[in-house]
Amino acid sequence: MKVYFLGVGGGIPSQNRASPATAIYFRGKILLFDCGEGTQIQLKRSGLSPQRIIDIFISHLHGDHVLGLPGLLSTMAMLQRTKPLTIYGPPGIRSFIETNLELTHTQLEFDFAIKEVEKGTITHPNQYRVECLPALHNIPAFSYILRMTDIPGKFYVSKARRLGIPSGPLRKRLQQGHTITTAGGKRVKPSEVIGPIRKGPIIVYSGDTAPNPKLATKAKNATLLIHDATFSEGHKDKAKEFLHSTAAQAAQIASKAKVEQLALIHISPRYVSFETHEKEAREIFPNAFAPNDLDVLELNPSRKFLARSC
Amino acid sequence: MKVYFLGVGGGIPSQNRASPATAIYFRGKILLFDCGEGTQIQLKRSGLSPQRIIDIFISHLHGDHVLGLPGLLSTMAMLQRTKPLTIYGPPGIRSFIETNLELTHTQLEFDFAIKEVEKGTITHPNQYRVECLPALHNIPAFSYILRMTDIPGKFYVSKARRLGIPSGPLRKRLQQGHTITTAGGKRVKPSEVIGPIRKGPIIVYSGDTAPNPKLATKAKNATLLIHDATFSEGHKDKAKEFLHSTAAQAAQIASKAKVEQLALIHISPRYVSFETHEKEAREIFPNAFAPNDLDVLELNPSRKFLARSC
Repeated sequence: MKVYFLGVGGGIPSQNRASPATAIYFRGKILLFDCGEGTQIQLKRSGLSPQRIIDIFISHLHGDHVLGLPGLLSTMAMLQRTKPLTIYGPPGIRSFIETNLELTHTQLEFDFAIKEVEKGTITHPNQYRVECLPALHNIPAFSYILRMTDIPGKFYVSKARRLGIPSGPLRKRLQQGHTITTAGGKRVKPSEVIGPIRKGPIIVYSGDTAPNPKLATKAKNATLLIHDATFSEGHKDKAKEFLHSTAAQAAQIASKAKVEQLALIHISPRYVSFETHEKEAREIFPNAFAPNDLDVLELNPSRKFLARSC
Repeated sequence: MKVYFLGVGGGIPSQNRASPATAIYFRGKILLFDCGEGTQIQLKRSGLSPQRIIDIFISHLHGDHVLGLPGLLSTMAMLQRTKPLTIYGPPGIRSFIETNLELTHTQLEFDFAIKEVEKGTITHPNQYRVECLPALHNIPAFSYILRMTDIPGKFYVSKARRLGIPSGPLRKRLQQGHTITTAGGKRVKPSEVIGPIRKGPIIVYSGDTAPNPKLATKAKNATLLIHDATFSEGHKDKAKEFLHSTAAQAAQIASKAKVEQLALIHISPRYVSFETHEKEAREIFPNAFAPNDLDVLELNPSRKFLARSC
């Protein structure tokens, strides 16, 4: 599972910091969180096909989070997409998409659903579960909590071989959790050849928000918290005025929630480097980092941070 | 006067070819023709401030020509623009802009006018004149003919000095076209110290269009024709089907209109290089070229092609 930070800028995009978009890639599928102007180009730069996107989650309707959507949909259509797509977002998202498609004469031939979300849960059985939590922003906005389903324990082929279990139906029954009897009459329990279930990662995407104690509760033990860090402590007053967070405030949420990693995004273009943000956050929560555009974070099944590539 | 080819791609933007946008820069001001997704980033890459844009001309409402507009307007607002701005485009442009601004909660504090154009002329006294010509496309679309006002003849200070005309009101009257009498009683006509008027450049922007004989008439003797060249001759049938032009068809218009230069843009992403387009066009009209994203064409007052920089 990989997290692609496609755009980490806030408000005004720049050459080095595109408007917000984060892609979660797993088993050949992509979940996209926010879709600022230029997201389709950032996907190309990352080598990700837009056709792999199955769901898009829009945190709120400020332009920098949503203006890449009509172009992305138009490109999907031109590339003759057939796979269905669902877009989730706050009330207004339907009107935004439908009006833009109509005014730009864009027709989508693929199955396409728009779901205006409320506080609550969206369930995708067998894949993942996404919960919507109202964020604290100046227009209706949501944070999203993504819980991936658990990953089955590792099947140890060498152990199975040693116990005289040939590949085929017997191994499959073990993987399905059943105790089996070998041709030699030996009873084998699944735990003898299969490792423990690996907990699915939890990724929390704050969207634009002032520090939200409810998010700290929902993000409990998350693998990764991707949090608004528009300002550094020197502009704490601005964070309060515009209902954003400072890097330190994001770190406080991360610390309270005991998450494993904190990614600081949506950094205002007024800051040339991310150094101050990282420094201020790490004083509170050491495992914090501010990704650059196109950075990739790999999360392995044991939920450990593996690599950050530029 | 400089022409910035900000985006030369057609349909689907790529890493190397942004969606259509062309900036005409003169005397510190910018006229923008089309505004595809990512135009604000291309402006930044070219070192052009969006605050210098005074007028925007949208050829038609296909997404690749217009989806950069809401983000550009939002950025102008965030940069606290005060200067007025006018946007011209086909019917629907008002609804497109107003709906996007409303749904993305964007408020513009600067003077801002939207003018839905018809076949006819828009006049800007003392600056330039833009004529709108209906294009031949599958939705309402326009070509734009930009005629810059003439530039006054060069004032030869050395000649004035030789004729005993001091700097000040007498020189000013000559520049205004009046014959004057020097302190020594000598009558001097303007033509004795001022060179001939330099004709203002004419730039023609076709937008998306099938070959249009009316455009060839309107583009007569233009300094630069920027023309749809979506396809090469091998896909002439596609050009016909989708109401676009081939590079050769663009060259035929350029040849008929006896323009000075032809720029081939809106090239389909199916072509990796522009070589075939340039070759096919030059067989008909030698002074043709296919600019890359961010190429700049400088037009000097004598309407000669000066430089193409990458």
